[in-house]
Amino acid sequence: MVAQPVWEPVGRVPTYELVLRRIEEQLLNRSLQPGDKLPAERELAVMLGASRPAVREALRVLQAQGILRSTTGSGADAGTVVMAAPSGALTRLLKVHLAVASFPLSDVVEARVMLERFSALGAARNAGDGFDRIGRALDLMDEPDISYDRFNELDTEFHIAIAECGGNRLIADLTVAIRESIRADIHRALAAELDWPVVRDRLRADHRQIHRALLHADGPLAADLLEQHIVDFYHHMATLRDA
Amino acid sequence: MVAQPVWEPVGRVPTYELVLRRIEEQLLNRSLQPGDKLPAERELAVMLGASRPAVREALRVLQAQGILRSTTGSGADAGTVVMAAPSGALTRLLKVHLAVASFPLSDVVEARVMLERFSALGAARNAGDGFDRIGRALDLMDEPDISYDRFNELDTEFHIAIAECGGNRLIADLTVAIRESIRADIHRALAAELDWPVVRDRLRADHRQIHRALLHADGPLAADLLEQHIVDFYHHMATLRDA
Repeated sequence: MVAQPVWEPVGRVPTYELVLRRIEEQLLNRSLQPGDKLPAERELAVMLGASRPAVREALRVLQAQGILRSTTGSGADAGTVVMAAPSGALTRLLKVHLAVASFPLSDVVEARVMLERFSALGAARNAGDGFDRIGRALDLMDEPDISYDRFNELDTEFHIAIAECGGNRLIADLTVAIRESIRADIHRALAAELDWPVVRDRLRADHRQIHRALLHADGPLAADLLEQHIVDFYHHMATLRDA
Repeated sequence: MVAQPVWEPVGRVPTYELVLRRIEEQLLNRSLQPGDKLPAERELAVMLGASRPAVREALRVLQAQGILRSTTGSGADAGTVVMAAPSGALTRLLKVHLAVASFPLSDVVEARVMLERFSALGAARNAGDGFDRIGRALDLMDEPDISYDRFNELDTEFHIAIAECGGNRLIADLTVAIRESIRADIHRALAAELDWPVVRDRLRADHRQIHRALLHADGPLAADLLEQHIVDFYHHMATLRDA
């Protein structure tokens, strides 16, 4: 039997995407580093054999990610420069991606536990000013008639403050991104809560215990309590969803 | 004394950026979910009070990130749809970001250690087909006259294979992104290596030990060996750089 010819359509990669990949390669192999200036749009178009609009679109994509910054004009400073991506840029990108990503919830929970355990251990070792920030968030959460809206905001602040006390900026940024990507889910869970005062009091008690362990520089205890706190909350969320 | 008026320039946020933020908000609060169709460009421009080119640029930025996909034409399927971001998209974004990010090297090393320890523990529990993939990479690295180029490629494959045996896709994606973002640094370090055969043999022996621990389902040992392997390599890189 003779195999039939198969005519599958060739994939079409838009030109801006090819330009984008070329610039990304230069960034990855460090030929382009923060502070470096890119050739002018016109020159790039000639060198890459692409149209100027395609080059402009590729530059725009990297500008929107905070990786490039372009200034207009004709002075010595005008042009497109590689930026040392500010850490907020990574968090923003990552949280939007995680929000639409198809990771199983259990993977996200495990990753949170791993990251927050790491930060708790580091925070207990470092101690310092950051602990005031954690305590301040908890004091504000004690307000008697606090809404779940405000509570959720301060809860995020509590977890972010611990991450930032952990002493590792990359890990803190990853933690913040994951926490922010699920903010809406947590908000929805709290809004659906039938017994808000009970849940609120349990969360407050958890937070205080974690804070206390950090103040006593007991990293392993703080890490275990954080893990339990995160896992319990997800179990509770799952119960609400299935109810 | 009367305070002098201060006239600081107002920040100028480009319109496409405002449109982008508006779409990101919808994604974060789950009003827009994978599979959902966005209003037509023309309608979006009217609703957001923005020009059509600004809307088009914002859509382009999200298309380039794999979050939106647009099809042209006038059929029922034409339009812009939210995609469940494929995991490769996250890795790609993250690795480019990490390459220009200003995280201290020690933060990156710590994050790698944390992620790879997690994967080793998971891989030892899961066992399975993935171990063949790890072993295959090691066999290929045994080639007598292997170049550091080819070695680096297989070394990346070795670490990625472990991450993917770990059973957590999010953590595997983060690991791969970090490993890929430093591929050029590792390549440069190996290229500068004065005593390549000695270093190569040491790396091979490390890898085999880690693989053996995984085969014996000894997660903690595999995790400790991986940690030592990563930390040693960075120390060695630092020595080369300072030499």
